[in-house]
Parts: sequence; structure tokens; C-alpha cells
Amino acid sequence: VRIALAQVNPTVGDLEGNACIVSERIAEARSLGASLVALPELVISGYPPEDLLFKEHFLTDCAQKIIELAEGCHDIVALVGVPWLEEGLVYNAAAVLAGGKIAGLYRKMCLPNYAVFDEKRYFVPGTRATAIDVGGMRIGINICADIWDEGSETIVAPHGSGVRVIINLSMSPYHMGKGREREEILSQRARRADCYVCYLNGVGGQDELVFDGQSLVLDPAGLLLARAEQFREQMLVVDLPLPARSHAKAEEGPGGDTVKIEPIDVIEIETPAVGDRFVNAATSSSLAAHALDVPLALADCLSLEAEIYEALCVGVRDYVRKNRFSRVVLGISGGLDSALVACIAADTLGSENVSAVSMPSRFSSEDTRSDARWIAELLGIDFREIAIEDVFKAYLSSLEGIFPTGTQDVTEQNVQARIRGNLLMALSNKLGWLVLTASNKSEMAVGYSTLYGDMAGGFAVLKDVPKTLVYRLARYRNSLTPGPGPIPESTIARAPSAELAENQTDQDVLPPYEVLDRIVEAYVERDECIDTIVALGIECRDVERVVAMIDGNEYKRRQAAPGVRITPKAFGKDRRLPITNRYRG
Amino acid sequence: VRIALAQVNPTVGDLEGNACIVSERIAEARSLGASLVALPELVISGYPPEDLLFKEHFLTDCAQKIIELAEGCHDIVALVGVPWLEEGLVYNAAAVLAGGKIAGLYRKMCLPNYAVFDEKRYFVPGTRATAIDVGGMRIGINICADIWDEGSETIVAPHGSGVRVIINLSMSPYHMGKGREREEILSQRARRADCYVCYLNGVGGQDELVFDGQSLVLDPAGLLLARAEQFREQMLVVDLPLPARSHAKAEEGPGGDTVKIEPIDVIEIETPAVGDRFVNAATSSSLAAHALDVPLALADCLSLEAEIYEALCVGVRDYVRKNRFSRVVLGISGGLDSALVACIAADTLGSENVSAVSMPSRFSSEDTRSDARWIAELLGIDFREIAIEDVFKAYLSSLEGIFPTGTQDVTEQNVQARIRGNLLMALSNKLGWLVLTASNKSEMAVGYSTLYGDMAGGFAVLKDVPKTLVYRLARYRNSLTPGPGPIPESTIARAPSAELAENQTDQDVLPPYEVLDRIVEAYVERDECIDTIVALGIECRDVERVVAMIDGNEYKRRQAAPGVRITPKAFGKDRRLPITNRYRG
Repeated sequence: VRIALAQVNPTVGDLEGNACIVSERIAEARSLGASLVALPELVISGYPPEDLLFKEHFLTDCAQKIIELAEGCHDIVALVGVPWLEEGLVYNAAAVLAGGKIAGLYRKMCLPNYAVFDEKRYFVPGTRATAIDVGGMRIGINICADIWDEGSETIVAPHGSGVRVIINLSMSPYHMGKGREREEILSQRARRADCYVCYLNGVGGQDELVFDGQSLVLDPAGLLLARAEQFREQMLVVDLPLPARSHAKAEEGPGGDTVKIEPIDVIEIETPAVGDRFVNAATSSSLAAHALDVPLALADCLSLEAEIYEALCVGVRDYVRKNRFSRVVLGISGGLDSALVACIAADTLGSENVSAVSMPSRFSSEDTRSDARWIAELLGIDFREIAIEDVFKAYLSSLEGIFPTGTQDVTEQNVQARIRGNLLMALSNKLGWLVLTASNKSEMAVGYSTLYGDMAGGFAVLKDVPKTLVYRLARYRNSLTPGPGPIPESTIARAPSAELAENQTDQDVLPPYEVLDRIVEAYVERDECIDTIVALGIECRDVERVVAMIDGNEYKRRQAAPGVRITPKAFGKDRRLPITNRYRG
Repeated sequence: VRIALAQVNPTVGDLEGNACIVSERIAEARSLGASLVALPELVISGYPPEDLLFKEHFLTDCAQKIIELAEGCHDIVALVGVPWLEEGLVYNAAAVLAGGKIAGLYRKMCLPNYAVFDEKRYFVPGTRATAIDVGGMRIGINICADIWDEGSETIVAPHGSGVRVIINLSMSPYHMGKGREREEILSQRARRADCYVCYLNGVGGQDELVFDGQSLVLDPAGLLLARAEQFREQMLVVDLPLPARSHAKAEEGPGGDTVKIEPIDVIEIETPAVGDRFVNAATSSSLAAHALDVPLALADCLSLEAEIYEALCVGVRDYVRKNRFSRVVLGISGGLDSALVACIAADTLGSENVSAVSMPSRFSSEDTRSDARWIAELLGIDFREIAIEDVFKAYLSSLEGIFPTGTQDVTEQNVQARIRGNLLMALSNKLGWLVLTASNKSEMAVGYSTLYGDMAGGFAVLKDVPKTLVYRLARYRNSLTPGPGPIPESTIARAPSAELAENQTDQDVLPPYEVLDRIVEAYVERDECIDTIVALGIECRDVERVVAMIDGNEYKRRQAAPGVRITPKAFGKDRRLPITNRYRG
């Protein structure tokens, strides 16, 4: 039986566009001779649709798309993820389209409600394991988390059900290294269920989330048969051999009697589509296609830095594109963070779609100013310089008489950062460019950034990238270019500084980033307490100071732009702490 | 049996302070001769603790407080809400403290996971209805949503369980008119269960939420015996008569046989505390106390405007106080929104703790400038004026050559709004004042406000108050003062304008607020589609335009400060829409 897994990139709320993607992929799968084609979880609505699911008309519009798509499914079976309203209840469903109609539905049973997931807010869990018979093969259908938990066999392939192939429709958000986690778990599931596992994941960015594809096919021994590429749309096609009499055997119960298959719903398909047409892999569309009549391609796994860099690129590209922007602008300081953001923007949007604005203050050095210019030049992006000194002076004179006279403090630093924010937003408003911000996760954690200043913008590219990882990504990006990379060695080597006061460096108020990032990871990502973190060998004083800064800056993060999640726990919907909170540690 | 309901105001994360509140109220209840005292849901952690619940040390710290409190409970039974970690599972629990120890636990069964609630993210549901016997009375214990749903009798007082009194520990977030909803539902529950219902709700503000108290006692006929005040801490004490042999009757099953009580856990209390001490209502603490030996006070219900005004005051007061600020600053324009915010701030924080800053532009009229000054004077708050013209000119000249020459557009308006944001934040940073913003719900809905401009600040007082309600609240506030109120008639009567361009009024780009607010209510609060809203009798053109504005401004709301929720659906955690979203309508 030939099965096609359509690893595609839907857009939340674009029902017309998503249905079009589905229809095109069904046609392609048909032309490739597939008996069955699968599309990702909630592909019709896009994932996650969040509170759109509370609109009844949204749900009926989704259903309408499924009805229309079903009409085109005569000689192929399509599994299509869709939110499904039924007797006042909403399910996360997989519609089985066959014989020109909706032949049946599977309703997701395991609804994740942790981390970035809120599925119990929206959906009622299904209660029936479900399978379809295609070309003599019984195929169990399930959705994303259904296959994730220990003991999920009862959901995906109940004992005695005769299921030989498990198809899982997912939209599984990326974090670094997740592909390998998935492969290990799915391999175990395949072995335990003694089934082929066809795991389909979507790709693309949606606000804070990136979906990384890497759809998989595993055999009943848990061995990898095929892996689709990471982050790219692709059609993965495999031929799975019919089981030799295993069907009859599976229907024998423990006592040896022939028992009715329970507890599984088998969806009857009136005109089973067991195509046996001539297949030529070269007929595949612009999406690369793998079929078993060509050597099976296991897409290479990327290095960790490459994987993260791609995730950031996809996140930026899709936030920009799906929100109908075509051009971005960013402040470029000559420092490392904005240099990396400039690279990502240029690489993913094209250098012609990126403007970098240097906004030197009285504290900016000639070195950083020239580095900023140099980076822009090497990337071939538009570069402008707007000095902020005159505006800064105007503020200081307006505030004269109100501020106590005396030494300047962090206030004046913030005023400068906010002047830059205002200038970038003015460019955004006037010219329709999206502002990218460059604050990294270490800064976001401790609040070492100015609200409405360097935090001002539509998308916070490095929001989930700790500073130590920024260094690694910068070196990785430089390694892609022959000769010296776009990020000058001087930018990498210089002590990080906001350049908002005389002789300032980040380490005036923060521990070294190697230490800071270990604390942030332990405290934010693993929810560890101060004692446990100190036991890792970090100075108690540092831990307490950093934890207090993290806790005290929740209000800033609450007003931050979204950014790409690349760790197991990002700021944003992944970590929901009260602002008003007197607990420390 | 004398029962005390302690309507208190805990602070999220302040375990020490919250345990202290509990301990004081237990002592007070004892001095009032109560046999049992109840404290609200999760009073130890504060509500909602959100992701603090993922910290194991937070949970063990909460448990430690309960252990310490139990040691002081010898001659009284206390029911205390606490998050409870048990064998790796976390429950939303009510600890029964008696005999100097934790006599038992009830674990909440209905976990709300809609609107602002995420309880399925944190808690595992309990499975056992639970009761305690106090002074010959069997009292069923349950928590908040347990009593809310149809059919909740099985949870709160299962048939044949012998329960005569239901005590419900709540933290029930306020929205306008919710008190009456609660009274109706609880009255029905009392009748169906044929039980007294003692409903305890907390008070106070927590980020976006306000809890409004109004604890209730109802008799088995559903009649109201007592109601505590709205928004204020209070101890509500009632004497409930022992049932005449109803206990034995209740234990008779349908067949007339004496059956074992099922399915309810009855917590054994070793030293039941049936105090019969002399009671004098005058001995009550600073919290007002009602007891049945004084005439039962049914606290008056407030008018809708008074109720909302108080909710806003409590929300502001507790956000300021619980985040350890003592002083606030706001921009005052002479318009209605900032005038109302100034009143709320002065009323709730004291006029000595409020600074108002007028920041006129070249477009500000003499009328609004003098109204701004007048409002500040009448309220007795600090007033300053900082003209923004010089700074504005400095920006324009910095942007010369970059901006296409020609007419000014919304960009220059936003630059001015952001200058004001920067000035207020500078005052905040220098002087430690919290910035209050004045954008109302109508503006937040359609994005008629400047991100990082008038939206810049720590707390958005009117974020959930539609403009038409702003008018009503302004008139209400004026009515509280003999003579002319603090908000001049000219401010109320003037056509609303941002004064950021020549001869500008809000209605240049928005439909009249009466129309706008009906659309916002239908679209945002009721999730209705365009056709349904048009069917209300609103111009299709207006509906489509406003809906597109609402959908298109999700990115601004995502970066907005928190504000007090007063409607059944507020922006914030109550309404979670994707930013990237192509669905319209």
C-alpha cells in the first residue's frame, strides 16, 4: 500500500488557502499512485487556532471546506485534520475523505494542556480508537499527543484490532533536539504495537511556534524507513508491504476464538482506492517526493546550530509573510545580537528586504559604529544612520526642573533606548516595515533591556536564544560564508555593552553570561529552586541576584513582542507567571 | 453550629503573609465562638498562582504553612484552601485543620479550564465527595466550580450522604453583575440539595482579576440568610440550627434500609470543637462581623456603576500595593479617559499619591489644557506640564531626509504619543512611580491607541471599560461629590479627540461610540459573526470595518499592560487569539 505524507505549511485562519494546499497535495498524491494521503493536524484551520475555535461560524466554515474537499476524493483516501463541531461539542478531528464523501472521523483522545498547549480549553476528547481498511491493510488513525504517552497503544493500535499501520497526524512545535526525542519515542511505539508508524508533522512558523517537519516512517521493529527534511514542505511517499495473513491472526482473541474487533471503530470505505497505477517519482510537484521505487532518502539531520538557525529563519519568514509584511527594519548597534538578527533577516527575507538603522548616542564608540556599517555592507542590506543626540538633549531640557539635579542614572539610559524605539517605529509606521528586535533570552530573563526601547517592535527574533547560544550561532553563520563572515571578529570579541553610559559593559550588573545562562536554564526552563542551582556550583550571591531579577521583570516580558521558541520552555504562552507575585525562588 | 466565613484578600506568592491572615482569622473566629471557620480557595498561595505551581519547592512551602497552621487549630475546625502535592500529583485542595493536625483533605473535582481559568494545566481532579461532622452537623466541603455546574449535587451533597450544610471555598473573579448570577445559581443548588449553602469568596485584585467577595449564606429553601459586602474584607458569622433527626433520615437508603454513606469520605475529627462560649459581636476585629445574635445584615448590593467603579479602584489599589509601589503617575489630557483614571487613582490611593502630567502638543487646545489643570486641582493631586513641541521638532529634523517629504500622516501622531510615553516612563524610572494608562476597551479593541505611546505604562485601568461606560462612570463619580464633580462638564461634553493632528476627532475614523461598543460587545464578548451583528441593526460597512480593525490589532493588545477585568470577556488571558491570523469575521 502506497502512503503519502504531505508535510505542508498551513496558515492560521486562512481556510481558503489551507484547503487549496490540501487539494493540491491530494492531487499530487494521486498522481504518485498513493492509496492514501495524510495531511497534518488541524491543517484546515492552521495550528493552533486558539480562541478562533470559540466562533461557531469559524467551525462551520472549516467543516464546509472538508465537505468540498471530500467531493474530490474518489480514487484516493485522504486524512485531513480539522476542528469539528458536533452536537455542540468541538473535537480535534481527522476527517477520512473517501468515495466522494466524509467516510468517517477520528476524534483526538489525548488533549495536551501543558507548556504551549491549551487543548482542553477548546476540545472534548474522543473516546474511540479508529481505523480504516485500505488495500487490505488496516490502518489506525490518531493525532499528535495520542501516540506520545506511555501506554498509548490502547489508543493507536489496541490489542487484537488488526491494525498494521499507525498514521499519526501532528503539528508538533519545535524545540532544539526535539526531532531525536520524537524518533526515540516513535520507534518504541512501533515496536510495542508491532506496527508500521507513519508520523506526519507540519512545517512553518506561527507566532511563537515553529513546526519542524521531519515526518517519519518506521517499521514494526522500530527502524527508520524514511525521514522528511526539517522545516521544509515535502511529500514523503512510502510503499508498505501487505501483511502475510497477519490480519486473521490479529483477530484471534486470547482464548483462540475469533472475536469481534474491539474497542476500535473501523470506518467503512465504499470505494476503496487501491490504485496500482504507474508511478514515476519524477512526476512529483515542486515538493520533493520520495517513493519506494527510488532509493529511500533519509533526510540528513542538521547540526544543532544549523537547526536552530533554520528555526529562527522560518519563524521570522513566516511571521513576516503570513502577516503580509514584505520588509523589515532593525536597529543595528555594531553589537552581536543585532548583527545576528540582521543575518537571519537577510538570509530568510532577502537582503533587499532588510533595512538596518544605526542610531549612535554620545556613548557609542567609533568601533561599534563602523562595525554596524560593515555588517550591513557585507549583507548587502540598506543602511542608515540617525544620531539620537539632538533628540536626547531636547528630552533632558524638557525634564530639567522636574528631575532632581545630580548624576544621571538608568533613567537617562532608558530615555535613549526609547528614542531609538520611537525612531524605528516611525520608520515602521511611515514605510510599512516590520520592526525586528534583538533582545536575547538572557536579557529578557533579567530585564536587561528597555521596555518601549530596544524591546519595541513586532517580532523578537532572539527572545528564546540565550546569549551564549548567540555566540555559537554567530560563529555558525560566519562559517557558511567563504572568507570572513558577515559578523566581524571585533563584534564577537568585544565585551557586550548597551553603550548607554560611559564605559558601560553588561557585566557591570550581570554575572558572566556563561553563569547567567546556566541560572536562567535551571530557573526558567527546569523550575529549580535556589538551593538546587547553587548545588550546581554557582555562587549563591549570583543565583539569588539573578532569580530576583527574573522574578522582578515579569511585567516587562508581559509587554514583549512574540519571538521564536527554540527551547523546551520559552517566555510567552509557555511560561505563565503572575506579575503580582511575592514568592521568591 | 456557628460557622465563620473569612472573606479575605491574600497576595499571590506571599505565603508568609497569607498564612498570617489565615491565622488571624482563625483566632478571630474562635473568639467569636465559631465551631468552624472557612478560608478561600488557595488562600495560602493566593489565586491564581499560575506557573508557580510548577515549582516543587513552592508546593512544599505551601504545605509547610498548612502544617504550621494546623498546630494552632485545637478548639476550632478550619478549612483552608491550598495547592497540595501528593505522590507527584497536584490538587486544588481544602485542608481540614482540627485537633492540632491536618485531619483530612478535600480535592477539587471540577477544574475550570475556560475564560481566564487554566486549572487543568496545573491540577489533577479529585474523585471523592467529602464531608466533616461538626457539632452533630454533617458539612459537605467543596471548592468553587464544584458547585457551579448543573448536576453538581453529586459532588457537593450526594444523595443519602446526610450532608446538611455545604461549604464552598471560592476565589471567583468579578465581572459586572456576577454577584446576582451567583446568588441565583447557589439558591437553586441549595434547594436541589436541600441544604444550607455557605459560599465564601475572597476579595482583592490580582493582575487582571478582581475578586468581589459577596460571600453568601442560603437556607435549604434557597433563601438568602446573609450576604457579606462586595470588595471588602469581612468575617461573616452565622448560626445554623441542628437538623431535627434529619441525620438519621438521610442515612436511610431508597429501600428504607440503613445504608453505609456512599460515595462520600467523611473526615474523622478527633476533638470536635463545638464551642458554646459567650459571643459578643462587638469583640470582632477590624473586619466587620455578623452573627446571628445581632440582626442579620444583608450587605446592600451596589448600583452597577458603583460596583464597577469599586472594582476598578480595588484593581488599581492592589496592583499598586501588592507590587510595592506607593505612588502613580498618569498623563492627563483634559479628555474623559484620563480624567476618570485620575479620579480612580486619587480615590483609591489618596490624592497625595498621584501625579498628573499634562503634555500638550502643538495641536492641544487651550480648553483641554485648562480642563486638565482643573481636574488635578479639584482632586488635589500633583500637577505638572511638560510641552512636547521641542522634542517633537527634534524628531522631525532627525527624520528629515529619511521620510518622504509631503504631508504628515499617522506616523507623526504616533511620534508625539511616544514622546509622552517616554516622558512618563522617565518620571517612573527616576522617581519610582507606576505609570497608569487610560486607553479604554473601545480603543484597545480597534487599536485606536499608540503602542509604546499612550499604551506605555504598568497598569491599564480602563482596558476593559468601553467608552460608553466611561461616560456613565464619569457621571457616577461626579455624583459622589456635592456640587460640581471633579470632571468638568466641558470634558464630558467635548467630542473625543487624541489632539495629535489639526481638528481631529475620534469619529473621523471610528463610528459613533454607541455603535462601536455594540459591535465590540457582540464580536469580542459574544464571538458573534458579522451577519449576526448586522442583524442587530448596525450598518454592514461599520461592522466589517470595525471587525477588521479588531482582528488587525491583536499585535498591539499582545503588548498592552494588564488591566482590570470587569466584563465577561476581557482582553488578556481571557481572550487568546493568534496574532498571525487570516480569518476575518
